[in-house]
Amino acid sequence: MTAGPSQLVILSGGLDSTVCMSLAAEAAGGPPLALTFDYGQRHRTELDHAAGVAGHFRSEHLVVRIDTSAWGGSALTDPAIAVPTGGTEGDIPVTYVPARNSIFLAVALGVAEARSLDGVWIGVNAVDYSGYPDCRPEFIEAFRGVAATGQRRGVEGNPVEIHAPLIAATKADIVRMGLARRSPLELTWSCYSGGERPCGVCDACLLRARGFAEAGVDDPALTAR
Amino acid sequence: MTAGPSQLVILSGGLDSTVCMSLAAEAAGGPPLALTFDYGQRHRTELDHAAGVAGHFRSEHLVVRIDTSAWGGSALTDPAIAVPTGGTEGDIPVTYVPARNSIFLAVALGVAEARSLDGVWIGVNAVDYSGYPDCRPEFIEAFRGVAATGQRRGVEGNPVEIHAPLIAATKADIVRMGLARRSPLELTWSCYSGGERPCGVCDACLLRARGFAEAGVDDPALTAR
Repeated sequence: MTAGPSQLVILSGGLDSTVCMSLAAEAAGGPPLALTFDYGQRHRTELDHAAGVAGHFRSEHLVVRIDTSAWGGSALTDPAIAVPTGGTEGDIPVTYVPARNSIFLAVALGVAEARSLDGVWIGVNAVDYSGYPDCRPEFIEAFRGVAATGQRRGVEGNPVEIHAPLIAATKADIVRMGLARRSPLELTWSCYSGGERPCGVCDACLLRARGFAEAGVDDPALTAR
Repeated sequence: MTAGPSQLVILSGGLDSTVCMSLAAEAAGGPPLALTFDYGQRHRTELDHAAGVAGHFRSEHLVVRIDTSAWGGSALTDPAIAVPTGGTEGDIPVTYVPARNSIFLAVALGVAEARSLDGVWIGVNAVDYSGYPDCRPEFIEAFRGVAATGQRRGVEGNPVEIHAPLIAATKADIVRMGLARRSPLELTWSCYSGGERPCGVCDACLLRARGFAEAGVDDPALTAR
């Protein structure tokens, strides 16, 4: 038996990926490897929060820089596009970053293979983020095909598993899953804007607030401040 | 009609991707966008050759840095692993970089979507590189599933197309295809090692030499020097 991690979690420092850390730690019986992307996002506070969450789990924390702002096209990376406020509905949001989760999963599969890890966990959610194509079950299933065909491990019949345990959960479900596992929700950051405190009006802040409200608890990230 | 490129070619500066540039230019009737990855490869001479090839085609050349050496695991990025010499056979080579083509294709799909391009071209080849899982038709087909499910374009029924026109070609076929289209083969670089001239003994040099020999022509990259 080896002492290192067997699972990798793509950790943004937000609520969903932090709950994924708890689920992966529970499944593996030990700290997962945490992988965070520095992709030119405006909300760089994310990176500090990811480090805090990884520290809580005593996880090794790997930060990989990928400059997607080079091709712009999203409100999260292109300063010329405003972050929208006022709620999510219809269509694909301007906060969609082209191929973001494809890039994240591809890198995660590479790290998992190089480090001989068994699984990659991603906190995508098709309920609240139905507008993002790469948060849907069809996309995750397609990427399982990539793991099965494009990697040594896959060819050998033992592909790196891709886990998306929150894909069908509501934000309130996720809050409850986190509370039940004592996830460090007070360390998480969801806001899309780049301020020192959550703005309270962007889509991510609104979804988060609704999740805690529906779960019937206060958001510890707000009360702790 | 727009004046910009409609196709993107993943360009390493080697023989295969340079012939892909010719094929994409021919299909589109104009210069494709060239996308090169700086992924911590030892053979950094590649990057200069890619720039030379892109210049030949008067293509816009985008270089995206992704530091895969952070997770090591390949002779092409990890200084602790020797580049093998003496021919390819059996098994998956140590020059395999975990998930490399997955990462390249994911980034290429992101750039293609952000820039409203119609197709991504990759010079993978299953004949001479049968040991690389991510050079096989099954892998390319799996990634088409990612383009179809994980992108705005795909959801709208108009996915970015992935072209792998050399997947079934021998190295001699590729040389002939290039010669027929006046591809700038004299500007290309294949050697895996980091010297100023091709080493002549690594797998890539041996495959290249055999291709030119079978096609019955001298390698212009050697004769031009």
